[in-house]
Amino acid sequence: MSKQTKVKLLKEGARLIRMNGYAATGLSAILKAADVPKGSFYYYFKSKEDFGLELVDYLGAQINGAFEGYLCKEYSGTTINRLKEFFSFFEEEFTTEEFPFGCPIGNLTQELAAIGEKFRHKLQPVFDEMYKCVAYSLQKAEEDGEIILPFPAEEMARFIINSWQGALVALKVSNNSKPFKVFNEHVFGLLLKKIDNQ
Amino acid sequence: MSKQTKVKLLKEGARLIRMNGYAATGLSAILKAADVPKGSFYYYFKSKEDFGLELVDYLGAQINGAFEGYLCKEYSGTTINRLKEFFSFFEEEFTTEEFPFGCPIGNLTQELAAIGEKFRHKLQPVFDEMYKCVAYSLQKAEEDGEIILPFPAEEMARFIINSWQGALVALKVSNNSKPFKVFNEHVFGLLLKKIDNQ
Repeated sequence: MSKQTKVKLLKEGARLIRMNGYAATGLSAILKAADVPKGSFYYYFKSKEDFGLELVDYLGAQINGAFEGYLCKEYSGTTINRLKEFFSFFEEEFTTEEFPFGCPIGNLTQELAAIGEKFRHKLQPVFDEMYKCVAYSLQKAEEDGEIILPFPAEEMARFIINSWQGALVALKVSNNSKPFKVFNEHVFGLLLKKIDNQ
Repeated sequence: MSKQTKVKLLKEGARLIRMNGYAATGLSAILKAADVPKGSFYYYFKSKEDFGLELVDYLGAQINGAFEGYLCKEYSGTTINRLKEFFSFFEEEFTTEEFPFGCPIGNLTQELAAIGEKFRHKLQPVFDEMYKCVAYSLQKAEEDGEIILPFPAEEMARFIINSWQGALVALKVSNNSKPFKVFNEHVFGLLLKKIDNQ
């Protein structure tokens, strides 16, 4: 049994679940896609739920890693531009797909009513980390005199990330980049604009 | 065969699908919940997909009816307060549930990658109607001198509705009203605030 087998299961599972949802993806489809026999699956995971919970860790580490690496490490240029670039990077990822599959973490969250509390406890810290990284950026931008924040950085970060999740929902129904256009316009053109007379 | 049987199927289907998702809800569960035999189902619907597509019409009519009735008919008081009340009404609906099940239309949209184009063509007009009603309110509020819109009403309406959908995703993971708090704060305290010096 190799570590690669486990990663292959998580990778293929992530791909299928992102497309079809957690509840609608059977274990047999994941095993087939990963070309792994059932016995090997049970060597790594106790059940589909156990697999799903590890999948949240796996996806959460990827997504939070991107947020931290991009927003919380050293970089050149202004913080607001960095944040803008970061969302543009994801925007490109999502709009070059033939069909928009959305955010793997947002998709799983949408299923929470069915999949339950154990998943919620795994997903919440992934959101919290996204909020934290964006709040850190906003704080830094204010300290550097780039913007004046009308609300506490932590609350603005929540609103921005939640609105981003909403843009990804709207993207699925519009299948064009309009939801990103209005997101950028409002977030970077209004919420994070240097506001005079305050 | 009665019209009531069809409505009962749609009602029970809507309830189960809102909780568990479209793909994960089997026909047999819907028949059982509605206490309707399989034969009667096929009298009204050709297939599960046919049922799902009619369900979007059914839910879309309810949701768009609420938007139109609340925002596009005569009322007393200011338009911005009316809009605020409207979101508060839904906020209360969503936060008094034991577990937040989210927006039935937003949930189905999240599943679009799996359920496909036919559903997208049914869901898109439901979103368009939500955008239209909010844009109408914003336009009216500007005409009445309540606010100055920094962007075209139609684009602001899109951003507001998409952000609302995002707040509903975040609600599932937080299971508290914080996503609504930041939504209200940013939308009514900043985007739709009377802006001087513009």
